[in-house]
Amino acid sequence: MRTVSSLDKLRAGRLSLNGTVGLVPTMGYLHEGHISLVRRAKLECESVVVSIFVNPTQFGANEDLSKYPRDPERDLSLLKSLGVDLVWNPTPEIMYPIGYQTWVEVETLTRPLEGAVRPGHFKGVTTVVAKLFNAVQPHKAYFGQKDAQQAAVIRQMVRDLNFPIEMIICPTTREADGLAMSSRNKYLEGADRPAATILFRALSAAKAAYEGGERNAEKLRTVMKGMLDSEPRAQPQYVSCADYDTLEELDLISGKTLLSMAALIGKTRLIDNFVLG
Amino acid sequence: MRTVSSLDKLRAGRLSLNGTVGLVPTMGYLHEGHISLVRRAKLECESVVVSIFVNPTQFGANEDLSKYPRDPERDLSLLKSLGVDLVWNPTPEIMYPIGYQTWVEVETLTRPLEGAVRPGHFKGVTTVVAKLFNAVQPHKAYFGQKDAQQAAVIRQMVRDLNFPIEMIICPTTREADGLAMSSRNKYLEGADRPAATILFRALSAAKAAYEGGERNAEKLRTVMKGMLDSEPRAQPQYVSCADYDTLEELDLISGKTLLSMAALIGKTRLIDNFVLG
Repeated sequence: MRTVSSLDKLRAGRLSLNGTVGLVPTMGYLHEGHISLVRRAKLECESVVVSIFVNPTQFGANEDLSKYPRDPERDLSLLKSLGVDLVWNPTPEIMYPIGYQTWVEVETLTRPLEGAVRPGHFKGVTTVVAKLFNAVQPHKAYFGQKDAQQAAVIRQMVRDLNFPIEMIICPTTREADGLAMSSRNKYLEGADRPAATILFRALSAAKAAYEGGERNAEKLRTVMKGMLDSEPRAQPQYVSCADYDTLEELDLISGKTLLSMAALIGKTRLIDNFVLG
Repeated sequence: MRTVSSLDKLRAGRLSLNGTVGLVPTMGYLHEGHISLVRRAKLECESVVVSIFVNPTQFGANEDLSKYPRDPERDLSLLKSLGVDLVWNPTPEIMYPIGYQTWVEVETLTRPLEGAVRPGHFKGVTTVVAKLFNAVQPHKAYFGQKDAQQAAVIRQMVRDLNFPIEMIICPTTREADGLAMSSRNKYLEGADRPAATILFRALSAAKAAYEGGERNAEKLRTVMKGMLDSEPRAQPQYVSCADYDTLEELDLISGKTLLSMAALIGKTRLIDNFVLG
């Protein structure tokens, strides 16, 4: 496994890779979710590149950039054991040198949900992913369904900007009690950890109602909101029952649907989602 | 020579090209300036792709999109005679299908000069060029120095977004009397045609002053403005003596410098520039 930081070395490393190349973009502090993406890429591609970059431009001014968890040594030994070919871990100065001034923005899909709570977040995401795509030139790129809106936004960017890249969205990996894997779970202390399963439980309740025949979207939102409100450590930010492709809130469920939510558990902001239909 | 419209056929055509691929992006209605770009690409690349697309998103609401000159048959026979391998002439619906919502923007460099007179113009330019780059995947891309700010903006985009593409900026091609070649010259009727040389003459006067030792940028701007004002058919929009890389207006000329201007000649908007140093 080769590990490089500079763009020149990344390009040289990329040239030495054979066949179909898969890219798994990450912010490091790898967990089972990331590992499932890397394993899938290893199955489907002859060469696998993983990027590790805590992208400052997707964090808001009051967010957790400076305290975002990091453990590069552990990450690298894990990726090596998984058989990754090339790791790119650029510095912020490499990605955003002095004079940097270009941004990629997806408009409609970035407005609701995470986009409404985290203004500017997706502008940072699409910009850095466009940079990763151009630098690595992968044939396939692997993202987790856990960040459902991010997956939808990047899928739209790939289509709109003609990136010759196949997007592979992989299922959310969960702890035994249902909590979606996330690097931010590390922040959950004491009673916040069991309380954090309220997102999974709220989604499960809405899904049970759906499977029982409920097609009124507002009723499912009410089920999810009621569950979140029942947990005193949870501060809900939104609950959504939206069209899977457009992310528009639904009245009546007919096709593929995204149930999603965000909540603070103590001081830790968590998101989760289920796909119906 | 293969001519394709759809993205799928473009990709298939691209796969059949060998070696270094050069891209010459155009809006059609080809003139000697375009031909010089194609000839240069033929010299430097094993395969040459030309795109022909009058990009609606770079035209303002009150600009000349609907009457922009077109002659696809002549363009194609010309490109064939030049030995071009692949021509991509997509429709607006192919480039901007329903639901299209992604934009690439360069910030600082797009503010002065053309960007100040034509708000939104460069957002359309960088977006379509990013799409062309991703679709064609060229090794080199050829642009004319005539659109000096466009060249600077795209160079910045290439650097910022890590496009693995070498930008080749080719000298402006001129008529015998100095008028810079442009598809819009077709609009010049009667006495507007000789009057249009005032841009070249104004630039030449400023260059003569520079070569005579003048390093005060304001004096050069005054020379150019005075010349433009002396032509009754000319309505100057701006004259500029700016740093070649940053496009910031200069006080004192020391390094590489861009003299540029825009003026209406009758109803026809023309731009031109010289590079000093």
